[in-house]
Amino acid sequence: MREVQLTNTMSLSNNKIKYIRSLKEKKFRDEHHTFVAEGIKLVFDLLETCRCQFLAATPEILATYPEIRAEEIVEANISELKKATLLTTCPPVIAVFHQPENKLEEIILKDKLTLVLDGVQDPGNVGTIVRIADWFGIGHIVCSPDTADLFNPKTVQATMGAIARVRVSYTDIAFFLTKNSHLPVYGTFLDGENIYTKELSTEGLIVMGSEGKGIRPETAKRIGRKLFIPNFPLNRTTSESLNVAAATAIICSEFRRRTF
Amino acid sequence: MREVQLTNTMSLSNNKIKYIRSLKEKKFRDEHHTFVAEGIKLVFDLLETCRCQFLAATPEILATYPEIRAEEIVEANISELKKATLLTTCPPVIAVFHQPENKLEEIILKDKLTLVLDGVQDPGNVGTIVRIADWFGIGHIVCSPDTADLFNPKTVQATMGAIARVRVSYTDIAFFLTKNSHLPVYGTFLDGENIYTKELSTEGLIVMGSEGKGIRPETAKRIGRKLFIPNFPLNRTTSESLNVAAATAIICSEFRRRTF
Repeated sequence: MREVQLTNTMSLSNNKIKYIRSLKEKKFRDEHHTFVAEGIKLVFDLLETCRCQFLAATPEILATYPEIRAEEIVEANISELKKATLLTTCPPVIAVFHQPENKLEEIILKDKLTLVLDGVQDPGNVGTIVRIADWFGIGHIVCSPDTADLFNPKTVQATMGAIARVRVSYTDIAFFLTKNSHLPVYGTFLDGENIYTKELSTEGLIVMGSEGKGIRPETAKRIGRKLFIPNFPLNRTTSESLNVAAATAIICSEFRRRTF
Repeated sequence: MREVQLTNTMSLSNNKIKYIRSLKEKKFRDEHHTFVAEGIKLVFDLLETCRCQFLAATPEILATYPEIRAEEIVEANISELKKATLLTTCPPVIAVFHQPENKLEEIILKDKLTLVLDGVQDPGNVGTIVRIADWFGIGHIVCSPDTADLFNPKTVQATMGAIARVRVSYTDIAFFLTKNSHLPVYGTFLDGENIYTKELSTEGLIVMGSEGKGIRPETAKRIGRKLFIPNFPLNRTTSESLNVAAATAIICSEFRRRTF
């Protein structure tokens, strides 16, 4: 049945190359409501859950994986893929997916842990956090509008496929936290309580702040349970903070540890 | 006393700009045995522990911090700094430091935890791991020769100043682990034991593998204590692994938690 889907079996057109490269920019991703993913692992993870608009791959890949389904499949040689790739090392497969609709109103918060990102700027950090959420069974992440775009190619790559399993929404988080103030709301602060000894619930919102400025005062006001990841030994001169993805990893691990 | 140190108060020469930019490449860093650091926080952290060969800053920075000491200080305007910077956002201060000598034979392993990196490729990951080590009071990191260079500007920036406090050495780690086989050697494996419930020592070596391939078989042979960070819920389809820096954060946190 593959043949039906093929519109061009032999080469990747310049228009398509231009289209793929344009998706590096948010304005074009927003216009087309699509995003790029590259590399076998990532593309195949996404094929399971996202609609693929367009897939370009080497003849070897297409022969090895005859089950690939997409609205359009193009056989491409490496020199064509090299012109299209946004990575430094050219992958054998590049695909464009329709952006999934992650509607905030569909998020179920009851009996679940949910991450809230308050202005995390770096796409690599956001992608790594999506991957951490996936590992620890956190199904939703709610982000402030100034958090790095989920569909930025750097974010997509850093998720290593977890983008296919974790739903990420963008909204006014001060409003979101106020609306959900019946839930426990956690955040890390230098004057917070030792996370290792503090009681942690299996339901609630965990807020992570931006790389440079941490959690905004407007957001902090809405956080009832202030935590701290103790440095070692205490009171030693050390880094002022941990990288936000590293801190997220520790916090999620600590919440889940309690269930073992 | 500052005046004595100034060789050029008014501009950053093209030769200096070329020199700074050349240090993006390892061969030039090796040749000069120096590295670049940019931005106030990072440069000031390094000034406390590393010898500064050369510092260029805006007049405002030099006026605000008259205590700055370097072998050579140059006042530079933003357009000059823009030509020199390796970052996308131009910082008000750029400095070149002599590489500290982190001699492996001077590392004290007794009664300490030490990280061992087995081919961690990404400079950002190595830098983040240095910052994690600093937070958790791990004073030394021993790396295989194919681990990303500590003095790569991306590594230096990701350490956020922790590079000033953590010593990093490069060596044949199979040999290093064999030589120190009297110490507990830990590593994470998919078939390892639950890290949350396993007994952990306050002394030992913790091995972290590369992003793509994990711990090499040659290295794995020398690891007696195999750990696993459980995903949640267990047996659910999830990411195949955590980012190496995220995993390092969780492991270091878990070792230190036991002391609280």
